[in-house]
Amino acid sequence: MPNEDIKEKMRKVRQFRIDEKDDIVDLILSLKETGFNAKRLAVACEIYKKMIQDKNCVKFFGLAGALVPAGMQKVIHDFIEEGFIDVLVTTGASLTHDIAETLGYHHLQGELSAKEIDDSELHNQELNRIYDVFLPNKVYEGIEDFVSKLEIPDGNMPVSSFLKFLGDNLPKNDKSILKICAEKNIPIFCPAFTDSGLALQLGFHHQNLNLNHFKDMLKMVDLAWDTKHAGICIVGGGVPKNFIMQSLQFCPNSAQYAIQITMDRPEQGGLSGATLHEAISWGKVNEKAKFSTVIADATIALPLIFWYLLRSRSKN
Amino acid sequence: MPNEDIKEKMRKVRQFRIDEKDDIVDLILSLKETGFNAKRLAVACEIYKKMIQDKNCVKFFGLAGALVPAGMQKVIHDFIEEGFIDVLVTTGASLTHDIAETLGYHHLQGELSAKEIDDSELHNQELNRIYDVFLPNKVYEGIEDFVSKLEIPDGNMPVSSFLKFLGDNLPKNDKSILKICAEKNIPIFCPAFTDSGLALQLGFHHQNLNLNHFKDMLKMVDLAWDTKHAGICIVGGGVPKNFIMQSLQFCPNSAQYAIQITMDRPEQGGLSGATLHEAISWGKVNEKAKFSTVIADATIALPLIFWYLLRSRSKN
Amino acid sequence: MPNEDIKEKMRKVRQFRIDEKDDIVDLILSLKETGFNAKRLAVACEIYKKMIQDKNCVKFFGLAGALVPAGMQKVIHDFIEEGFIDVLVTTGASLTHDIAETLGYHHLQGELSAKEIDDSELHNQELNRIYDVFLPNKVYEGIEDFVSKLEIPDGNMPVSSFLKFLGDNLPKNDKSILKICAEKNIPIFCPAFTDSGLALQLGFHHQNLNLNHFKDMLKMVDLAWDTKHAGICIVGGGVPKNFIMQSLQFCPNSAQYAIQITMDRPEQGGLSGATLHEAISWGKVNEKAKFSTVIADATIALPLIFWYLLRSRSKN
Amino acid sequence: MPNEDIKEKMRKVRQFRIDEKDDIVDLILSLKETGFNAKRLAVACEIYKKMIQDKNCVKFFGLAGALVPAGMQKVIHDFIEEGFIDVLVTTGASLTHDIAETLGYHHLQGELSAKEIDDSELHNQELNRIYDVFLPNKVYEGIEDFVSKLEIPDGNMPVSSFLKFLGDNLPKNDKSILKICAEKNIPIFCPAFTDSGLALQLGFHHQNLNLNHFKDMLKMVDLAWDTKHAGICIVGGGVPKNFIMQSLQFCPNSAQYAIQITMDRPEQGGLSGATLHEAISWGKVNEKAKFSTVIADATIALPLIFWYLLRSRSKN
Repeated sequence: MPNEDIKEKMRKVRQFRIDEKDDIVDLILSLKETGFNAKRLAVACEIYKKMIQDKNCVKFFGLAGALVPAGMQKVIHDFIEEGFIDVLVTTGASLTHDIAETLGYHHLQGELSAKEIDDSELHNQELNRIYDVFLPNKVYEGIEDFVSKLEIPDGNMPVSSFLKFLGDNLPKNDKSILKICAEKNIPIFCPAFTDSGLALQLGFHHQNLNLNHFKDMLKMVDLAWDTKHAGICIVGGGVPKNFIMQSLQFCPNSAQYAIQITMDRPEQGGLSGATLHEAISWGKVNEKAKFSTVIADATIALPLIFWYLLRSRSKN
Repeated sequence: MPNEDIKEKMRKVRQFRIDEKDDIVDLILSLKETGFNAKRLAVACEIYKKMIQDKNCVKFFGLAGALVPAGMQKVIHDFIEEGFIDVLVTTGASLTHDIAETLGYHHLQGELSAKEIDDSELHNQELNRIYDVFLPNKVYEGIEDFVSKLEIPDGNMPVSSFLKFLGDNLPKNDKSILKICAEKNIPIFCPAFTDSGLALQLGFHHQNLNLNHFKDMLKMVDLAWDTKHAGICIVGGGVPKNFIMQSLQFCPNSAQYAIQITMDRPEQGGLSGATLHEAISWGKVNEKAKFSTVIADATIALPLIFWYLLRSRSKN
Repeated sequence: MPNEDIKEKMRKVRQFRIDEKDDIVDLILSLKETGFNAKRLAVACEIYKKMIQDKNCVKFFGLAGALVPAGMQKVIHDFIEEGFIDVLVTTGASLTHDIAETLGYHHLQGELSAKEIDDSELHNQELNRIYDVFLPNKVYEGIEDFVSKLEIPDGNMPVSSFLKFLGDNLPKNDKSILKICAEKNIPIFCPAFTDSGLALQLGFHHQNLNLNHFKDMLKMVDLAWDTKHAGICIVGGGVPKNFIMQSLQFCPNSAQYAIQITMDRPEQGGLSGATLHEAISWGKVNEKAKFSTVIADATIALPLIFWYLLRSRSKN
Repeated sequence: MPNEDIKEKMRKVRQFRIDEKDDIVDLILSLKETGFNAKRLAVACEIYKKMIQDKNCVKFFGLAGALVPAGMQKVIHDFIEEGFIDVLVTTGASLTHDIAETLGYHHLQGELSAKEIDDSELHNQELNRIYDVFLPNKVYEGIEDFVSKLEIPDGNMPVSSFLKFLGDNLPKNDKSILKICAEKNIPIFCPAFTDSGLALQLGFHHQNLNLNHFKDMLKMVDLAWDTKHAGICIVGGGVPKNFIMQSLQFCPNSAQYAIQITMDRPEQGGLSGATLHEAISWGKVNEKAKFSTVIADATIALPLIFWYLLRSRSKN
């Protein structure tokens, strides 16, 4: 490798200035010229923007982690409403949380002292803790009530079809992920559906249910197979990440755009923390893909990316 | 809280000495009197030992992460063979890896330079990378061959029944997790089964398959419900952790013993990194339970725990 | 603890909406009502704002990590220029990087492939790598030239006095941390000064140098002792964190405000990842203090906090 | 790169079996053939063994983190006594903890509930918390008493000379790091010495102290310069890591052996988590060096490595 090659590809790090009148697009453009996760966040913003501008791009969005309890339900809803997500893959927990909020229940937060959030005491008070957010037990009663009344047309339908049915049956509202997906015909895949409070309630009240997971798996492969330009945004890893990745593995076109927002790291060998670069060896991500992994809490990174996408669209 | 209470419960940290003639039991006993993850590892060893000695304890084992590619297949096999696991919950990937090794294929490792493990080049050579381990593509052909010839008696059976069937059909060997579970009638639950290469091959070759996930979910709840003393060992988090936890949530007896070995942390709010203490608020872990979370790579901690269990048993 | 106490202190998590016309103050106010690190970031913003508004507050700022190479030099400079920092404690590396940029040298970045940033090749090309940022060797020559010409008035002066002298001798510019501190008489403490390229150059060219570290240690204790309201902002942990903390430990007034931005975690027992709550046991942080630890890359969190502080000031 | 090159360098991952009669050498040899951090730990053991067998190797050992409070004092002492460390670089905190234990004080541990270790209550009881270990305030009184009576021969001596003097003045015992280093003439460098409780006590009682940090810095460079084969073992990162690394940067022979045991990661760009591979670009580690980073709590990894070194020596 001749010397000049590397240096020619390098640019000065910019010691950027923040002006109070900056908007998010200004900030992201500045961060693009820095290093570490700031730069990676800026690159992720830019890649997502390109995914949206590319009319041939199908945008797969993998969502793991308790983002709805952490107040990100409406942000994710708006990603979908704005057309920034074409296929959603998520966990049963996220769907459970989404229904809870949609039915009028709430997650709770507060500045509590260490003594006040003693878990034994919380248990006595029927408050389930998710780090610094709390879910009252009575939420489950509300979900149970909703679920028990469902008239499920076909107990063997694919999980994704059932999730569309669920969305159709939820009340009109402006924040539900299930509802907006149903309205916009955005498929939701949930490969580990039975690993959720929602599925437990379904199972208790609809004993013969056997929602089809295999049809969804094959449908997802078909979607990936037909995609000219696959773009993926992975939030937090887990099953949603792997399910998107495995669908792309054997396709003619692996991902051309890839974003990953996670706190997980590669060294312990699990898929959640695996680099997007590693995915090239599998043929899941194209070797010429634009990709960026941001090591950040999604509750910080996701709102910033969405804000950037909104603002940059209107500035163009 | 009166002063004397805390201090009375405290003991001196022991500045222990290692003798080359020590065995693993000596080492763990020494680490018990230290701090940080060394102590937590020692406490985990002790808890697991108690779980085994407690005749009323049902030992739930949640296994996530690429432990078979990392050479831990036989260790996990021996956990099962020795009777240290009563119910296994794992990922489709682990089962895929288990079948690959059982059919005579191998994961690869090696001291490769950064240039040599360039992922584009690996892709050209059909070597899939899992951090520092490599899986040749041809392994999938072997799995496909095995899977395509299966004569599945019932396309609607529960996933766990299918996994028993799979184990029965694998060749006799001394390291397969599926095989030893089938032989010893240890149930394997895999809530995200369709999120795996194994399920993909099944889906391609057995188009009408609709393995029942809901029956497994309910069966798991029944198992948890009937348990007098539940003991849980979580390796790596993910769906296996949550599936075990959710089954215990509404039971009369929440977990009395709990071990967690993970590199994940609580601050981002995901379940994988959630503390076992948090699980008390949910009623998944009993407030009087003995529990220990070890922040460690399972490839280091799991062999040590197994070694301790073997050795301490024979010393008693 | 009566039931009503906890619930009364809890509030609904707000499923907030992002409008493209929002400014950073709007976003932070929304995040305040969420959970996980988003909420903690918002609380940190609010605490920093209070520190600035509190006329009795002395703001101690601990800076570790390669923030100047990552493009954050000007942001930190502006924290100081705006009066948001009263006492700076940092590493020798940060000062070395600051001088390099101030003398007209630059750190480099670029979208390089894995092969291109092979470290052996970088070494051949005299490019030192800091994750994804690069520092050409020739920068050291420039620093050496600057350092060799210094006429140091007193080889036994405290390190902080020497850093003031350094700042005075640097050319006028609008981004140097050393310069703005010298101009505004903000003391810089650097307890591990000899652990730096700058100190190495000084040592090579000024053989009898014995800058006094003990006087600085005592001066820092005096500063902490005299502080009515101590406020601390820790970026990244390390020696700067401990040096600030130890100074406050034996003072009549421990910290009343505390912010920590770090990727480190408590479980391995090191001080960098220790919680601010733990610092209460030491008397370093007051038990009634307002505090927030944000698990985030400082290159993302620090610009956001600064932007918030600027914008919220002008909106008031 | 021709195909055969990569595959020829690869070996099968071994699905190893643990026998209760195994010793630590057997286990490490098995782990060598696996993946992830188990393999890296085994490689680290092997490298350390080679460092010891190589008569031309100078073994630099960087020690950061609260290892003495966590019960690792005697293990580190024995590393030194056995001749496994030639130059020690550490933190002031480690030296403070070492003196406390050597003077007969103790760190405390215990199975305390969340409520019991409330930090405000601990503060009232004068118990300082280090994660799950506790240091009573009265320890400081003992250190103060010891320090106040020291008759320091030269207030301007290098820190390393002072630490030799300290070791000479400590009572005879079998676990003190300072004592064994003094007895065996192993130099201890402590670049951030004034960042410690020990230095604070010294400063309060010996007002004119100006221990020379620059002479140590230059002495360390001389040591590194004269080394034919440099071997480094980094525990936890921080200043000790950087101080060793910077000394090797400009030497004719960069490190030929390198081990790092840390929980820190590279993505945030700090030196503690930087890979050993990155150090090649700086010329700190030789491009042909044998090196291994183990992502593990040192309280687990360090005893295992020591145990391996003892046992493998006697088996040869």
